[in-house]
Amino acid sequence: MTDQAQLDAVLAHVDAGLDQSLDRLFHLLRIKSISTDPAFAAECQKAADWLATELNGLGFNASARPTPGHSVVVAHGPDQAGPHVLFYAHYDVQPVDPLNLWNSDPFDPQIREDASGRKIIVARGASDDKGQMLTFIEACRAYKAVTGSLPVKVSLMLEGEEESGGKNLPPFMRDNAEELKADIALVCDTDMWDRQTPSITTMLRGLVADEIVVTAADKDLHSGMFGNAARNPNQVVAEIIASLRAPDGSVTLPGFYDDVAEISPELKAQWQGLGFDEKAFLGSVDLSVPAGEQGRSVLEMLWSRPTCEINGMSGGYTGDGFKTVIPAKASAKISFRLVSGMDPKKIRAAFRAHVEKMIPADCSVEFIPHGGSPAITVPADGEFLRKALSGLSAEWGKQAVITGSGGSIPVAGEFKSILGLDTLLIGFAHVDDQIHSPNEKYDLDSFHRGIRSWVHVLAALSK
Amino acid sequence: MTDQAQLDAVLAHVDAGLDQSLDRLFHLLRIKSISTDPAFAAECQKAADWLATELNGLGFNASARPTPGHSVVVAHGPDQAGPHVLFYAHYDVQPVDPLNLWNSDPFDPQIREDASGRKIIVARGASDDKGQMLTFIEACRAYKAVTGSLPVKVSLMLEGEEESGGKNLPPFMRDNAEELKADIALVCDTDMWDRQTPSITTMLRGLVADEIVVTAADKDLHSGMFGNAARNPNQVVAEIIASLRAPDGSVTLPGFYDDVAEISPELKAQWQGLGFDEKAFLGSVDLSVPAGEQGRSVLEMLWSRPTCEINGMSGGYTGDGFKTVIPAKASAKISFRLVSGMDPKKIRAAFRAHVEKMIPADCSVEFIPHGGSPAITVPADGEFLRKALSGLSAEWGKQAVITGSGGSIPVAGEFKSILGLDTLLIGFAHVDDQIHSPNEKYDLDSFHRGIRSWVHVLAALSK
Repeated sequence: MTDQAQLDAVLAHVDAGLDQSLDRLFHLLRIKSISTDPAFAAECQKAADWLATELNGLGFNASARPTPGHSVVVAHGPDQAGPHVLFYAHYDVQPVDPLNLWNSDPFDPQIREDASGRKIIVARGASDDKGQMLTFIEACRAYKAVTGSLPVKVSLMLEGEEESGGKNLPPFMRDNAEELKADIALVCDTDMWDRQTPSITTMLRGLVADEIVVTAADKDLHSGMFGNAARNPNQVVAEIIASLRAPDGSVTLPGFYDDVAEISPELKAQWQGLGFDEKAFLGSVDLSVPAGEQGRSVLEMLWSRPTCEINGMSGGYTGDGFKTVIPAKASAKISFRLVSGMDPKKIRAAFRAHVEKMIPADCSVEFIPHGGSPAITVPADGEFLRKALSGLSAEWGKQAVITGSGGSIPVAGEFKSILGLDTLLIGFAHVDDQIHSPNEKYDLDSFHRGIRSWVHVLAALSK
Repeated sequence: MTDQAQLDAVLAHVDAGLDQSLDRLFHLLRIKSISTDPAFAAECQKAADWLATELNGLGFNASARPTPGHSVVVAHGPDQAGPHVLFYAHYDVQPVDPLNLWNSDPFDPQIREDASGRKIIVARGASDDKGQMLTFIEACRAYKAVTGSLPVKVSLMLEGEEESGGKNLPPFMRDNAEELKADIALVCDTDMWDRQTPSITTMLRGLVADEIVVTAADKDLHSGMFGNAARNPNQVVAEIIASLRAPDGSVTLPGFYDDVAEISPELKAQWQGLGFDEKAFLGSVDLSVPAGEQGRSVLEMLWSRPTCEINGMSGGYTGDGFKTVIPAKASAKISFRLVSGMDPKKIRAAFRAHVEKMIPADCSVEFIPHGGSPAITVPADGEFLRKALSGLSAEWGKQAVITGSGGSIPVAGEFKSILGLDTLLIGFAHVDDQIHSPNEKYDLDSFHRGIRSWVHVLAALSK
């Protein structure tokens, strides 16, 4: 068989086997692998074990390796000529609340049609990241079935703590650095540019997440008996939150923007050329006015500017009805997305110093860290990047683009710092996938052509 | 029998029957009559029915009357010479969360010793207000047992929505105004001045409670994908809360203090004479610095100055771990305690206007009212007040004092506006009773000598 004939045969196998691929995805989606909630620890292990079994069935040497948290699945394919790729994805998912906003059970995956007649796979994790993860594994399966081997040497590292701070993966990578050596890392956890245009993401924001718990009195108080006289921690936490953003949308922490560089005129021009529709982007979630720094484009806000977001806040009585209480404690979960150049340690320290300064007499604050990682920028001129772009372009019949992303994928920074690897971020999700929200979905097309895309990309990398 | 011999016999009966009185209180405390939570509606009805049955057993004509919410128990004793008193208390209780901070089941009442060796009755509602309510009913029982009648004509109105906004009582009182006519209202829902000194409360703050729900996007969003660009309702609600108090502790709503009068120099002098220990008061809940308006005494903050307190706030992910979400909605439960002269309608309107002004583009706000009532001031020179003070002083061997209260008892205002009645607020609770908090208690002494106090007060009123 010529290279092209072999490629065509593998792609035909993908097309013919799509239903079986979906069956396997659905099996994985039914496993409730919510990593942040200890109640679902056994489900996380179940997902890891299932993946190890599947990969062993494809000729990998695979196992679910224990960590102090959830297992990491590591798998190695047979040696091959050409580059050695290390594929990463995560098998854990976000919690599902508010459950009442789901139109179907989040762990009972379904294929439905959306309003425009497009077929979608609806389930928690359909897009983030089980669907994306299986695009790669199913591409490997098709190669194995048709050619008996893979075009390059493939290792996989599939983790279970991406959605919960991921404290155990970096030490695991350090402890197993020799075993995990490769030439390039591949990560499938990002979006296409639009439904016609594949993309490789080369700028990812970092993340610092912190929880603050402010305590005043030693018990909940009656607001009639103690109001005015006793410090109210709800008020204290609200004042801290309010102090973090200026009226112009900028973040107020001292030094926050010190290490933030303006993007180059070239990149700015390229982004303008993407024709991003700010109105449509915000309109898709019923908004119309960008809330961030005034005078910046939405793409800048999302890709090249740091954020401060309040992901959760809670204090006092929050059930139905009313209770005239002054609570003993109030809390907030706050995260900062970082851009290239910002030091997570420095930002966390600046945040904590700012909070400490705002804690009044009689109050104390506890900080609970929830992970931190720097932003990364992938060199935009490498050989692997060029080959991967050509593979993607071959599948989609359209030149693949290079984009930024507002999200954070800490492991990309760790591939660089721990293993010395650059990362290609290739994904098939869409901005309307409602990841982390009720009714998460993955386009059936993302799944099908995502598998085909990896077939092309692996072929391109082998040349 | 002389009047004094009769009084002594009734008091002796109270002492001898204390264990049976406690049995009845424990029966009532075991009924989970949480009015704010619809799940406990049947328990509220059970409490009302039990009270009606007990009162019928004491010769009252009693029934639990339906309302659109929880029942109101109304009971009338036989005609007597002298004044006709209308006694009010409430049989509903606050929710019990956080349950894990209770040292025993809140609905399994227990007699324990506190750290100082004092006997206390521990249960939800022990103090607020089931224990207080039964002090009066048990005093009636003792009179009936010893003398076959009561010294004055007594009616009772016992409600079940005091802890949940009480929307149904005012219309009930209006609909039954003729039947509820009396000469003076008695309310048992307040504190003693200290463990040796009984008091009658003549100033009560009013209350305006409002809930705000701020909505931005039409769904929860991923903070990496939308952070900076999408408005975060947690931030909006926090900014609203933060805006309500100035750094000097005052409330910032325009016009908030317009109708607030300074207390008279005489009252100020009387309050100073009470020897209130600010340090000990705040120290009892592990605080040390008054949080309200600078330059005001704590008694002023509690009795004669209005408040704004955040009783609850909630938005985004508040469970264990972290979730990088921008929620669609965030909310806060906010209440204002009002002092004499302030109009609840005006304050609610000022609050809502202020909030509306702070709602940014793309956000909407919903207001959920949770009750409003004006402050009341009882004339400090009436005949009933004088007699009641003398009755209390006789029991405690110490001159009863006249005090204010930081709390709100809306019914006292409604007695005046609907029935034209003044109210005597007489109670035996203590500031350390932890009402509305875990481990609520009522001193056994409050219960026992509270019953004896009502025996004295009814005797004094009959003269």
